[in-house]
Amino acid sequence: MEGSGERLVLNVGGVRYETYHSTLRAFPGTRLYQLTEPPMGSPLAREVFFDRSPHLFGYVLGYYRTRQLHCPPDICRAVLEEELAFWGLADAPLAPCCWLKLSGGDGRAEDFHAWEESELGEEQGLLGPIESPNSTRAQGTWKPWLWTLLNQPCSSLAGKCAALLSMLFLLGVLVIFFQETSVQLEYFTSNFRPLEPWDGEKDGLPPPQAPTPGLVYQRAPHLLYLELLCVLWFGAELLARSISCPNKVKFLRSPMTLVDLASLFPVLVELAVGRRAERHPRLCLVLGALRVLYVLKLGRLLGLVEKPLALRVLAHTLRSSWREAGLLLLLWAGEILLFGSLFLYGELLGTGHGQGQSEVHFADILTCFWWTVITLTTVGYGDIYPMSALGQVTAAITAMAGMLTSVLLVPILLVRFQRCYAVALARQKLRPSGTL
Amino acid sequence: MEGSGERLVLNVGGVRYETYHSTLRAFPGTRLYQLTEPPMGSPLAREVFFDRSPHLFGYVLGYYRTRQLHCPPDICRAVLEEELAFWGLADAPLAPCCWLKLSGGDGRAEDFHAWEESELGEEQGLLGPIESPNSTRAQGTWKPWLWTLLNQPCSSLAGKCAALLSMLFLLGVLVIFFQETSVQLEYFTSNFRPLEPWDGEKDGLPPPQAPTPGLVYQRAPHLLYLELLCVLWFGAELLARSISCPNKVKFLRSPMTLVDLASLFPVLVELAVGRRAERHPRLCLVLGALRVLYVLKLGRLLGLVEKPLALRVLAHTLRSSWREAGLLLLLWAGEILLFGSLFLYGELLGTGHGQGQSEVHFADILTCFWWTVITLTTVGYGDIYPMSALGQVTAAITAMAGMLTSVLLVPILLVRFQRCYAVALARQKLRPSGTL
Amino acid sequence: MEGSGERLVLNVGGVRYETYHSTLRAFPGTRLYQLTEPPMGSPLAREVFFDRSPHLFGYVLGYYRTRQLHCPPDICRAVLEEELAFWGLADAPLAPCCWLKLSGGDGRAEDFHAWEESELGEEQGLLGPIESPNSTRAQGTWKPWLWTLLNQPCSSLAGKCAALLSMLFLLGVLVIFFQETSVQLEYFTSNFRPLEPWDGEKDGLPPPQAPTPGLVYQRAPHLLYLELLCVLWFGAELLARSISCPNKVKFLRSPMTLVDLASLFPVLVELAVGRRAERHPRLCLVLGALRVLYVLKLGRLLGLVEKPLALRVLAHTLRSSWREAGLLLLLWAGEILLFGSLFLYGELLGTGHGQGQSEVHFADILTCFWWTVITLTTVGYGDIYPMSALGQVTAAITAMAGMLTSVLLVPILLVRFQRCYAVALARQKLRPSGTL
Amino acid sequence: MEGSGERLVLNVGGVRYETYHSTLRAFPGTRLYQLTEPPMGSPLAREVFFDRSPHLFGYVLGYYRTRQLHCPPDICRAVLEEELAFWGLADAPLAPCCWLKLSGGDGRAEDFHAWEESELGEEQGLLGPIESPNSTRAQGTWKPWLWTLLNQPCSSLAGKCAALLSMLFLLGVLVIFFQETSVQLEYFTSNFRPLEPWDGEKDGLPPPQAPTPGLVYQRAPHLLYLELLCVLWFGAELLARSISCPNKVKFLRSPMTLVDLASLFPVLVELAVGRRAERHPRLCLVLGALRVLYVLKLGRLLGLVEKPLALRVLAHTLRSSWREAGLLLLLWAGEILLFGSLFLYGELLGTGHGQGQSEVHFADILTCFWWTVITLTTVGYGDIYPMSALGQVTAAITAMAGMLTSVLLVPILLVRFQRCYAVALARQKLRPSGTL
Repeated sequence: MEGSGERLVLNVGGVRYETYHSTLRAFPGTRLYQLTEPPMGSPLAREVFFDRSPHLFGYVLGYYRTRQLHCPPDICRAVLEEELAFWGLADAPLAPCCWLKLSGGDGRAEDFHAWEESELGEEQGLLGPIESPNSTRAQGTWKPWLWTLLNQPCSSLAGKCAALLSMLFLLGVLVIFFQETSVQLEYFTSNFRPLEPWDGEKDGLPPPQAPTPGLVYQRAPHLLYLELLCVLWFGAELLARSISCPNKVKFLRSPMTLVDLASLFPVLVELAVGRRAERHPRLCLVLGALRVLYVLKLGRLLGLVEKPLALRVLAHTLRSSWREAGLLLLLWAGEILLFGSLFLYGELLGTGHGQGQSEVHFADILTCFWWTVITLTTVGYGDIYPMSALGQVTAAITAMAGMLTSVLLVPILLVRFQRCYAVALARQKLRPSGTL
Repeated sequence: MEGSGERLVLNVGGVRYETYHSTLRAFPGTRLYQLTEPPMGSPLAREVFFDRSPHLFGYVLGYYRTRQLHCPPDICRAVLEEELAFWGLADAPLAPCCWLKLSGGDGRAEDFHAWEESELGEEQGLLGPIESPNSTRAQGTWKPWLWTLLNQPCSSLAGKCAALLSMLFLLGVLVIFFQETSVQLEYFTSNFRPLEPWDGEKDGLPPPQAPTPGLVYQRAPHLLYLELLCVLWFGAELLARSISCPNKVKFLRSPMTLVDLASLFPVLVELAVGRRAERHPRLCLVLGALRVLYVLKLGRLLGLVEKPLALRVLAHTLRSSWREAGLLLLLWAGEILLFGSLFLYGELLGTGHGQGQSEVHFADILTCFWWTVITLTTVGYGDIYPMSALGQVTAAITAMAGMLTSVLLVPILLVRFQRCYAVALARQKLRPSGTL
Repeated sequence: MEGSGERLVLNVGGVRYETYHSTLRAFPGTRLYQLTEPPMGSPLAREVFFDRSPHLFGYVLGYYRTRQLHCPPDICRAVLEEELAFWGLADAPLAPCCWLKLSGGDGRAEDFHAWEESELGEEQGLLGPIESPNSTRAQGTWKPWLWTLLNQPCSSLAGKCAALLSMLFLLGVLVIFFQETSVQLEYFTSNFRPLEPWDGEKDGLPPPQAPTPGLVYQRAPHLLYLELLCVLWFGAELLARSISCPNKVKFLRSPMTLVDLASLFPVLVELAVGRRAERHPRLCLVLGALRVLYVLKLGRLLGLVEKPLALRVLAHTLRSSWREAGLLLLLWAGEILLFGSLFLYGELLGTGHGQGQSEVHFADILTCFWWTVITLTTVGYGDIYPMSALGQVTAAITAMAGMLTSVLLVPILLVRFQRCYAVALARQKLRPSGTL
Repeated sequence: MEGSGERLVLNVGGVRYETYHSTLRAFPGTRLYQLTEPPMGSPLAREVFFDRSPHLFGYVLGYYRTRQLHCPPDICRAVLEEELAFWGLADAPLAPCCWLKLSGGDGRAEDFHAWEESELGEEQGLLGPIESPNSTRAQGTWKPWLWTLLNQPCSSLAGKCAALLSMLFLLGVLVIFFQETSVQLEYFTSNFRPLEPWDGEKDGLPPPQAPTPGLVYQRAPHLLYLELLCVLWFGAELLARSISCPNKVKFLRSPMTLVDLASLFPVLVELAVGRRAERHPRLCLVLGALRVLYVLKLGRLLGLVEKPLALRVLAHTLRSSWREAGLLLLLWAGEILLFGSLFLYGELLGTGHGQGQSEVHFADILTCFWWTVITLTTVGYGDIYPMSALGQVTAAITAMAGMLTSVLLVPILLVRFQRCYAVALARQKLRPSGTL
């Protein structure tokens, strides 16, 4: 009865596949092999029924026929795994030409989860568990209200007013900051020597270097008080946020909170130091530099605007590729050290000493590194440039390396962005529950 | 009769699927579940016929078997939705690994509509409803003829002549404009001090700053009259367009019309002011600046040329991503404010005051912002560059940030362009009715 | 007999589809509709056989069921067209969500032909019809041999020697050319004023501007004769090529031939002019400039090297997108005119005349256009830069526009390259006859 | 019996295809044709069974029906080849619209092998055959232990300590190197003329050009001994590596080994030369330049860090596209020669000699080439820039060509990276044996 030419009908989900017994004997131990070795006494079945997908069974049967396991394009990995496990082929190696078909679907599933987490983390983020408003109802509902007011200004008229007021104060403090810089610039540059021609004669001129007696560093007090007013508002806003925030830990670890907090100090310190600042102009300079934090507060403005999908994806891509960014920065640092040193020795070797025809433009190796950065990024100010042929060759190589390095950034960023954008676009079309 | 092992044949569009009753009981309430619960009295059917697609039913049955709804690759969303609705599975969640397969088709449909609208809007645009020529036949047919003559010069010989004449006048007015600039440059630079070395000694030299008595700002009158002639032609052309245009509202809101209109004024004002202009050279300068509009009129030339598909798609991509562009501009503005302020304080802190070895290159914070723009775009003129180590570090970071920002533009633009180009290419191959 | 619920079996290529008569009555006049309206007297068939693809018939039947014509992904356009024509559905509109599935395959077929023509054009090109060697056997076989010798040097030892000799002569002529430039530079710069400091005092110094009597422009005669030798070799080579070339018209129209021809003249003219050249140094300069053609001859070297596929595709992409390139150049020219004019007026308006604090860096509008090019390409030499705030704003916009314009090139080039590279890679894997 | 209308049932793997005898007679000599010509005496079969894939047979039958061989999307080349061979259609030409469907799968298989080899080469590389530790057990197990200690520092505490120590020594030697550069700079610049204004008056000043007698080039001896200490450590490390390495040949040919070896020499030579170095400062300079190798040793640091997949793929892409890189470099060199020569003659022709208004910025053609590199890479220092209109046109073309050339790099790099990244990502998901 059991001949190699004996045919067997496999009814898989309604589709009748026919094959020879000999074909099914290719892989002993699997479910299909067992069909050809019936238990003692029972006759060989002529037709067997399996309640499985008929489509995938075609590929399983193909594995028995050709000893190569292929799969349909764009098959979901989970589906294939389950099917192979059912037929007892979990260890069957997939043909290399099909590896890519499979993995597309699989990598995307991971991307989906990464993207959903990132989106949730951004949107809910500080809100903590969604149910928290219900559970803390006894405590009053003003906290969620205040939080919504401050963070989603578009949701109510009061929120819009508060956001507008904040924007005005921020604008005000920026205007004051820019005003202050001109006062400081005037003071510090008049304490330097007056502006001179490029060649910088070094003959004497010490008097202007001594602080001009008539010129005292003194900010207009009303600017300082106006700034204090703005900062008080920011302090109040930060206080309101910190009280109403449902998830204190996340709130404190958010970089925006740190910026808010740090930007309160400069004006307070300056008031505390008071008139003694005139004798410590350097301290004033540091306090002024700290006020750059006001500019960073503009980042909140970006948070209020609804960002289009492409930019959210771009931000997600940048965040998720910090390891690549770190290593590329290392590579960049290595290039700077290497080309900087090469440039230094190139110039020294190139300009024959004692010939007096030209000279190097730098006084230490740090300046060479500075030159390398400016050349690698193709900015090329022209304050330092090679004078000798050897130095020019070094510079040419550096400039080409810089162009190549900037091109290297494109593919890494692009490939990740493309994957993530496709995922985000697909998710956007579905309802939150995943149905159509 | 109703056993778990009982098999049922589902004849879906001719393909006979077989499965167990127990499998179909997975989702109560659906059409397939009802087959297992016949109305009182009627026996269980052994074979049921459905006039549906047999291909998709395989995936529906797979959902009953594995509780996971997968779908074939590149399935059209509408098809899947209709099929699921028929089987009572409209709320079935799609497996995440299949989300991307589905959405590809769907997003493209939207892209198709956006592209078709954009193309129609450009081509017909001002023509208004296509039927208008018929309905206004009583009014005469010269209007559509004139409109076609002016806007599709390739359609007739007269149109070609008119276009050529317009081009000649445009060329003439540009030559006159460039001629004028040299007159103005000569006048204004001779009212400045003569060109001097870089170091700009400020000792005296007031005589050249007083307007040289012998030099009077005076344009050659024949140039002015030639320009007037050209402008009169442009005015006549604009009049002809505005009369013959079928859709007046769209015509008036088109930016090209505004340019045409505005470019009529400078020469008229200059003629009206007449000889008094000598005493108001600044007004002449403003009128000259307005003549830059003549250059913008060259944009019409681009409208006449037939643009290849890739460029039409590129223009569409740029138009449709104005929100991303706006936010990136905001980001850029933020970077300029931030790095400009950092650079100012970096330089001030870096150059120790009172040491007199080097100085800052700028006199106010606006110049710092200017420096930031030139560094971020990697132009790097070299008029301002950091002198201190701290400033150099700031500048290095700025230059790197600039390179990164320019790279960020690529993926957003590219992904949109790729999608849109594929759509436009596909549409081009089909007949307007959508058949092959 | 003819009921709406009446089922009909359609045996399409062996697969039995079943459907209702009412379904098939959706589109009168088609082949399937006629099945439901049998000719007078003949009974309705219960099963009909069609010798067509059962797979595609599923989509055709779906069109009857849902009135929407979908198609499987990546279907070949020709296949679908033939199938629709058979079923009398040639005018059926394809659902928009499927347009893209179809066109992928179709556009690629055209790409294939474009690529094959390009490759053939390059490889055989000047060889003319393949059969020509056979038909002209009477004329002797030395012509094809010579042609192969000169154009495929790797095919024989003699070819390698000839190529090496050509290379050596080319190298020699280049060395002579570079040698000549230094002679010319010395002569012309010593006829200028000597090199001076940057600020260029204009006080007197006329003597060096008069031609120094002792310095006569005179090339070393041996260099000239060596150059003549090289050029004679090139002339012989060109002659050999032109005689042995099977396709004279294509050969004469090839740009490389024109370069070869033109590069023969400079040395001959210089010899003809002879010693009178000393009184016409400007002519010598023009003849020197023409010798840049020697550098272009290096292009032949590129022709000898076997180019990898990616570069061949890149060259093909660049050739096939000349229309896009032309329009982008137009756009660039427009930008230069626009921003150049804006910059001129920005600077003039910005620097208040009569205040004497700073000045414009340019003397005519052409210099402004030059500045615009250098800013748009982000080179930024720094010879001209804005001095006034208004000019700086113009420059900032120009720099940003330049960065954006360079980014615009990427997607157009990339999308075409990707399509073409996929096509070329696929073709490379197949045998020339198209079989596997 | 043998009529054109005669139907035949082909049971292929269970699916019953039906067709006419006349259809199968399309291609004589194939397996299916033979079915229609039974051996003498035997009757025509009505149903034939083949144990093949029913899915692909649909395409084979379509070839008989339409004379065009299509294939399903994303079919594996090997599968299709085997199937066609079975049916006797190995020479059937594939329709051009399907070429791309096929090759995708095939090219990827090759990419897979290239990637696997590259990964293995990198990871095991110097380890030689995996079994070597077993076979050389008699020799002791300290060699593999030492090798692991030095190359995989994360594997044990001792390894971490050794790596940390190496890092500290490397840091130390770099600090010493940077320290030395400042000594050398000071010596060589004080042997030049002192720093002067830009215009470089050449009047006299010979005394500083003569070596200042008081200033002797002399390194601090303790720095030299410290450096010797570090170098001794590096030597010991290199020795340990070279002894413990299982694959000596690969180890010696690794570029990192050469760097390690070469970096031992400078300090030894300097010690050998000893005090005589004062009379050979140029030798010291060369020895200093050789110390740039210390910076290259930082590359080992990159080897210790675990690199993310994207960067490994990027490195693989760069390595595998060296031919394209080489040809692009050739192209670049050609551009430099061409534009450099054009620029030289443009400037010479543009600046009318004898007018004395402006001059060229360069003294020989090499400086022109240097200018071309700096313009092509859009660095634009501004040390040399065109003064004449003709030169400016040349420079504008050069700058645009530079921008275009840098854009050309993107598609080649990107297309290869995308293919390779997809392959690497897919491989990463599978177990080493290729199963799921």
